[in-house]
Amino acid sequence: MSQGSINSDLAKERQKATFNVENLSVLLHGGPAKLKRKRYIENLVCEDPFYRQLKPWSYCSIEEQYENALIKHIHAKEQIEKHGIKDRNDLITYKGSAFPHEADPIAINTSMFIPSLEQQGTEEQKAKWLPLAYQEKIIGTYAQTEIGHGTFLRGLETTATYDPKTKEFVLNTPSLSATKFWPAGLGKTANHCVVVAQLYTQGKCHGIHIFMLQLRSLEDHSLLPGIETGVIGNKFGFGTNDNGYLKLNSVRIPRDNMLMRYSKVLEDGTYIRPENPKVTYGVMVLVRSFIVRNAAVLLAEACTISIRYSAVRRQSELKPGGIEPQILDYQTQQYRLLPLLSTAYAFHFASTNMTETYERISQQIEGGRLDQLPQLHALAAGLKAFTTYASSAGIEVCRICCGGHGYSHASGLPKIYVSAVPGCTYEGENTVLMLQVARYLMKCYREKQQGKSLPGFVSYIGESMEKKSLMGADVSFTCLIKAYKHRAARLIEEAAKQMQSFIQAGSPAHVAWNKSSVQLFLAANAHCHLFCVENFIDSIRDCKVDSNTSKVLNEVCQLYGVHGIIENLGEFMQDNFLTGHHVDYLQKKMLTLFELMRPNAVALVDAFDFPDHKLESCLGRYDGQVYQALYDYAKMAPMNQTEVHSTYYTHLRPLMSGDSKL
Amino acid sequence: MSQGSINSDLAKERQKATFNVENLSVLLHGGPAKLKRKRYIENLVCEDPFYRQLKPWSYCSIEEQYENALIKHIHAKEQIEKHGIKDRNDLITYKGSAFPHEADPIAINTSMFIPSLEQQGTEEQKAKWLPLAYQEKIIGTYAQTEIGHGTFLRGLETTATYDPKTKEFVLNTPSLSATKFWPAGLGKTANHCVVVAQLYTQGKCHGIHIFMLQLRSLEDHSLLPGIETGVIGNKFGFGTNDNGYLKLNSVRIPRDNMLMRYSKVLEDGTYIRPENPKVTYGVMVLVRSFIVRNAAVLLAEACTISIRYSAVRRQSELKPGGIEPQILDYQTQQYRLLPLLSTAYAFHFASTNMTETYERISQQIEGGRLDQLPQLHALAAGLKAFTTYASSAGIEVCRICCGGHGYSHASGLPKIYVSAVPGCTYEGENTVLMLQVARYLMKCYREKQQGKSLPGFVSYIGESMEKKSLMGADVSFTCLIKAYKHRAARLIEEAAKQMQSFIQAGSPAHVAWNKSSVQLFLAANAHCHLFCVENFIDSIRDCKVDSNTSKVLNEVCQLYGVHGIIENLGEFMQDNFLTGHHVDYLQKKMLTLFELMRPNAVALVDAFDFPDHKLESCLGRYDGQVYQALYDYAKMAPMNQTEVHSTYYTHLRPLMSGDSKL
Repeated sequence: MSQGSINSDLAKERQKATFNVENLSVLLHGGPAKLKRKRYIENLVCEDPFYRQLKPWSYCSIEEQYENALIKHIHAKEQIEKHGIKDRNDLITYKGSAFPHEADPIAINTSMFIPSLEQQGTEEQKAKWLPLAYQEKIIGTYAQTEIGHGTFLRGLETTATYDPKTKEFVLNTPSLSATKFWPAGLGKTANHCVVVAQLYTQGKCHGIHIFMLQLRSLEDHSLLPGIETGVIGNKFGFGTNDNGYLKLNSVRIPRDNMLMRYSKVLEDGTYIRPENPKVTYGVMVLVRSFIVRNAAVLLAEACTISIRYSAVRRQSELKPGGIEPQILDYQTQQYRLLPLLSTAYAFHFASTNMTETYERISQQIEGGRLDQLPQLHALAAGLKAFTTYASSAGIEVCRICCGGHGYSHASGLPKIYVSAVPGCTYEGENTVLMLQVARYLMKCYREKQQGKSLPGFVSYIGESMEKKSLMGADVSFTCLIKAYKHRAARLIEEAAKQMQSFIQAGSPAHVAWNKSSVQLFLAANAHCHLFCVENFIDSIRDCKVDSNTSKVLNEVCQLYGVHGIIENLGEFMQDNFLTGHHVDYLQKKMLTLFELMRPNAVALVDAFDFPDHKLESCLGRYDGQVYQALYDYAKMAPMNQTEVHSTYYTHLRPLMSGDSKL
Repeated sequence: MSQGSINSDLAKERQKATFNVENLSVLLHGGPAKLKRKRYIENLVCEDPFYRQLKPWSYCSIEEQYENALIKHIHAKEQIEKHGIKDRNDLITYKGSAFPHEADPIAINTSMFIPSLEQQGTEEQKAKWLPLAYQEKIIGTYAQTEIGHGTFLRGLETTATYDPKTKEFVLNTPSLSATKFWPAGLGKTANHCVVVAQLYTQGKCHGIHIFMLQLRSLEDHSLLPGIETGVIGNKFGFGTNDNGYLKLNSVRIPRDNMLMRYSKVLEDGTYIRPENPKVTYGVMVLVRSFIVRNAAVLLAEACTISIRYSAVRRQSELKPGGIEPQILDYQTQQYRLLPLLSTAYAFHFASTNMTETYERISQQIEGGRLDQLPQLHALAAGLKAFTTYASSAGIEVCRICCGGHGYSHASGLPKIYVSAVPGCTYEGENTVLMLQVARYLMKCYREKQQGKSLPGFVSYIGESMEKKSLMGADVSFTCLIKAYKHRAARLIEEAAKQMQSFIQAGSPAHVAWNKSSVQLFLAANAHCHLFCVENFIDSIRDCKVDSNTSKVLNEVCQLYGVHGIIENLGEFMQDNFLTGHHVDYLQKKMLTLFELMRPNAVALVDAFDFPDHKLESCLGRYDGQVYQALYDYAKMAPMNQTEVHSTYYTHLRPLMSGDSKL
């Protein structure tokens, strides 16, 4: 096999696809112009000799990974200017392509520091700091999480106490558990940050507020007085990022350094509260919509790698004495991979919907209408939790489906996993978020009980429905949606009743809540699952593609709906809504869908259109030359640069000759 | 809080435990003498200043990890000799304590190279090589897996062709996909290996056989002619080990280098086949029993870390405005952690049973009785797959339950995970193993249909049973076992019938098998699950402990049984064996068990008796001083040894001043 040729199994897979891959790619990427632009930008990175000459990340030490990320940041900045890339999506494409599955230590300056200033700063504050931050003359980070405090913001301990004599705030870390911990870029890179701290003025605490703080000298990067910072040490992933800690010992900042667009502290220390505290939810929702998008993309990448490899890899035998089959021909391999592929598609459409919903509701918020905010907040929180759980677990399944080679960094999968799984924790711990969704659902349920009508997507709650599914052997979309609605509605009602019964038995509300929280979690989960199923069905019903592509998308969507019921069967059967014969239909349907999707599996991952350099995978290469790539990866290992490793002389030889002395 | 004091929350947890932790530890470790001995050995490592002065593994480069592992190997060898440690369990304890969650690059000399010689070598061969290997005058590895071939041994491509003229075998790697890949220690450490290759003599292939091969010169460690080897490159974990690749180009070895205890090639090239090829199954079963043990231990370690941390960590609020509760008080946290704790206990007892069964049946095999071998083989394969899946997924749940800090290597959990999860792949890929179990179960089912009686643990297959569960609100052990038996028996029968119907419809047997393999997998999984439940119940029924401990173990066991049904509800409900009201009982029971187990959670993990140095975790420390430990870990980071990192001068300052030039 010469380099550059396509593995013959993979070539055959592409020939036998029943639809036009390009048509589906166009659909997934929002039209031919957007797809073309995406490819143009990715090609800038792919063909740039600068990126090609860098050592593979997995052969770099932590300090090399960090240094390379800085170098890449500088190069990327130059290229972005040179090519005049300004659109937000284009920038995301360029950065995602240049920094696959890792975090540039200066990225947080753009993603959190600047938005905080833009949204929380007064006009004067913005004029003072934003130009410097845009040009990276100052480099900022966002210091919120503390070593002892995460998702629960009210628990933060860092204090900012106003001193009217000097018109300054005094920042302090009052205890070990108040140490800021985890902020990206904080260890060695940032010289500024916005700090989230409890505001004290006139002897009273007014809760958390945001303060601008210079950390390091702009002359020589030395730490300013009262400031202790450093990296938090090595982690599961993100070796490129110097996540840091910060201790503050009576650090004084001018009054003007409190970001005062909403709340204010006057010179004499008088506190003015904000008009509408909810208005800052917008950023949080936006960040969560990025996380949902990321969960969808990362799962799609893992599916691409694992499915292409499963078409190339031949192993064992089906027919005794026959040739080794492609492992994708084993039903058990299809059972693990095809539902994940359908999930990646479902999450793609969920993410698209969420972005559109965010944009629509944001405009209403800008216009002063806040009534849809709770709905948007619940959608963002729920989808963030639902997709990150499923995506990260799914990526590991894809990795394990690649057998031993999945464990090598050559597969690219470990890095995808460690970049995905923190999404379950950051920007709101998933369980906490699911319980926030549950709180919203309980409110909806109560309102429905009181005769109020519920907005769009939650309107099914408390509606009277069929007691038994009418599902037939064809397992129609209508019956699928009804089943998911029934399950979610039932679990919501059960959670509400369970809470009620604890309260009637004398429990205080918060105890009843905690005692029902497993049930509440399951209800919220079922609600999010329903959203993904119904939205998938709606999305492909409305989309404009040729009939062949449409047929294939229908199969993928059916599998998502069918498999989701089979995986959670008890919740659909507990009240006999589904019965044994429905389950027979569903199981048969699933196996039929495996057979229908099998010939299109490779084409369906090709349609995601990930360039090889973004996957960073020997197993997921478009050309399928996996063994040559694994061998080449091995040859590059630093330890292979000498035939005899230095430890032979220092340790092995003495050990073998029996005279090792340590 | 001074160093050395116990976190007050953790101290209270220990005070409120309802049983004597030491009694349970004694039970888990096989009696007071064994527990004492275990502690003595672990203490040798803990108190040895040599181990304490090593840099934490996560701050080492790959080459430092490798070198440190060699140094530790040499030191450990000296200490083991000095302290006269000879018993196999004692050696495992010492090594496990000195090398937590990592692989010494010479360990494979003991675990695979020497056993291969012992079992496959003739007396002359053993006399020639074993003394050298025991003394580590030669260092060997075991080269089986190829880059294109894993679990399916018949697919291996490496050839050993006998040349009667020179009385030598000629070893070759006939293609890229035949490259040996993954063997531990092969890259830089080993100078010998046993190679698994297809034997050709007199123009005929006789399948795979084992050959002794010298890789490197004993003078200077240089590679011998025709041999190419090196490391395979960096991986998800096991940085200490130089897993390697090997290519052979017409390497000649003497005829005597074929391990000829069973098969033989005579001087003229005549092949003599072995008398009983099954006899070599023993080692495989033994290795799998170690993997089951390891899966149990690693999950128990992860539970220890996550449960201790959940007792120390305070976050959010239950009562509005109240103090932040220990996160272990949230029902959702209990829902994630307590079933895993019960699983760790279940796997402990499953592993103990398997070791005992192995020893009992091995003696029969030594005595020439092979009739119980299929049963033992199915047990080993099934438990290996069942426990490694559940343990590795569970470890990740424990990690995510620690929030953000779980992602830091300071938590110890990422390293535990990456040491556990390859267990799903090596020594038989889990899906393949589960299908081997299914094959055994299908054979049992057929035999029962033919009126034969089945041996012990599979005797439930094909028996007539109740159509509906008699389970009441108390959820008795009897009803639990019946439910698991019913589910397994039903799934086995369904798989058999499904296959039969495909065959009747004209499918060849191998097609019917593949088309039924999801169902077969589920049947095998249910069978293994039943084993773990029933064995747990039997083990605690028979064990001798005081009544308080016994009561707590009963609760843990009930939770394992109850939660397992709730997680797999559909499989118990599909034929109405369990109905909605049973599910109500089970769900109530589960919540009740959470409340009963909550006060004992910390004591239950303390009873596993893991010393701190083995957990390598800031979060799982016995004293609960987690924040101080995280801070200390951060301070140690190499990047924190200077206030201003060198990249400031080379990259950051030029970037900020706008004159960066790459």
